Amino acid sequence: MTPPPPDGPPDRRPGGRTARIRTQVLDAVRAELGEHGYEGLTMEAVAARAGVHRATVYRRWQDVGGLLADVLDAAGEDDWAPPDTGSLRGDLTALNEEIQESLVIRPSIPQALMAASFRSARAADAQQRLWEDRYTRCEAVVERAVGRGELPPHTDARRLLIAATAPIYHQLVLLRAAPDPRLAAQAATTADLAAAAGAFARPAPGDEG
Amino acid sequence: MTPPPPDGPPDRRPGGRTARIRTQVLDAVRAELGEHGYEGLTMEAVAARAGVHRATVYRRWQDVGGLLADVLDAAGEDDWAPPDTGSLRGDLTALNEEIQESLVIRPSIPQALMAASFRSARAADAQQRLWEDRYTRCEAVVERAVGRGELPPHTDARRLLIAATAPIYHQLVLLRAAPDPRLAAQAATTADLAAAAGAFARPAPGDEG
Repeated sequence: MTPPPPDGPPDRRPGGRTARIRTQVLDAVRAELGEHGYEGLTMEAVAARAGVHRATVYRRWQDVGGLLADVLDAAGEDDWAPPDTGSLRGDLTALNEEIQESLVIRPSIPQALMAASFRSARAADAQQRLWEDRYTRCEAVVERAVGRGELPPHTDARRLLIAATAPIYHQLVLLRAAPDPRLAAQAATTADLAAAAGAFARPAPGDEG
Repeated sequence: MTPPPPDGPPDRRPGGRTARIRTQVLDAVRAELGEHGYEGLTMEAVAARAGVHRATVYRRWQDVGGLLADVLDAAGEDDWAPPDTGSLRGDLTALNEEIQESLVIRPSIPQALMAASFRSARAADAQQRLWEDRYTRCEAVVERAVGRGELPPHTDARRLLIAATAPIYHQLVLLRAAPDPRLAAQAATTADLAAAAGAFARPAPGDEG
């Protein structure tokens, strides 16, 4: 265990001491979560693994829910963008393959975080922010398809994305089905065919009243 | 608290003492789960609420996971059948409305059981059996649609049913979205349009090799 640095005024420059401690602590949360799940996640084990004073961990994250919420918030701070393959069906298939991979790998941190978000209100709120962020970024997939003329302009991007991805989460998280290598493409194709048939059409502005 | 009846040979006739104790205990599990969630579910509270000897509850269900598993197994012993409205889209919409209702009502026992199944392996196994039972019963919806000529004979019923229902669970259980009264019909319509476009076609027997 690395001895913690002596206390001093927090250095809030990016890459400074505050940022470094956060990285160490969140890495430790992910590692503990992967090894022991939510049940085994304690402030003490995280502090020890991170090589950071327990008092610092309590002051900054308060409790296990605070640690989980920050792991989820940190996941939203990356520069992830959805796949860009040149077609709607290709993008949705590649997206579903990424999702499936992240849920099937052991230990799966996304699975552990979803399970934890049933236990902690702070984690649930952060999980909801992360979903919102991810689906918002994925709207680029639909915008590109509209730009290529694959979809009509008034397409409800969010509904299309939920239809394409929900079966992956349903099968792997809730139904606990064995991974099926065809699932990613099948769910993408289903959403693509439904989109072509007008399933996600929104009334054009002005048509609503 | 009702005094427990004196011990004697178990009466295994349907409606006998064994069945009556099970009903009392499982009712108590559902009530405790609805009031306190998994966190507050204890063998002691269930026994007290059911008016049954603690020793009987321990002997017969072992632990909280055993109680949850039996609640889930009991849910599969009813005579539930999917709605029969005369059309595929109507059946899927009515089915989704039932699902949405069961997830939105407070307390929602299905939500509490899904959350609990992340905590207990026995509950997870029983939850998986219940999903399997429910989706198997729902295949009647697809068989009727095939019989009416709405769908081609080689339709993958399970994939169609997952496509129709997954968005409801995804929105309400994982994304924790506010209930949307349009969701049931929209998800049903999406699956119906995708089905009409051949999304769930299976190769005819003999075409596979």
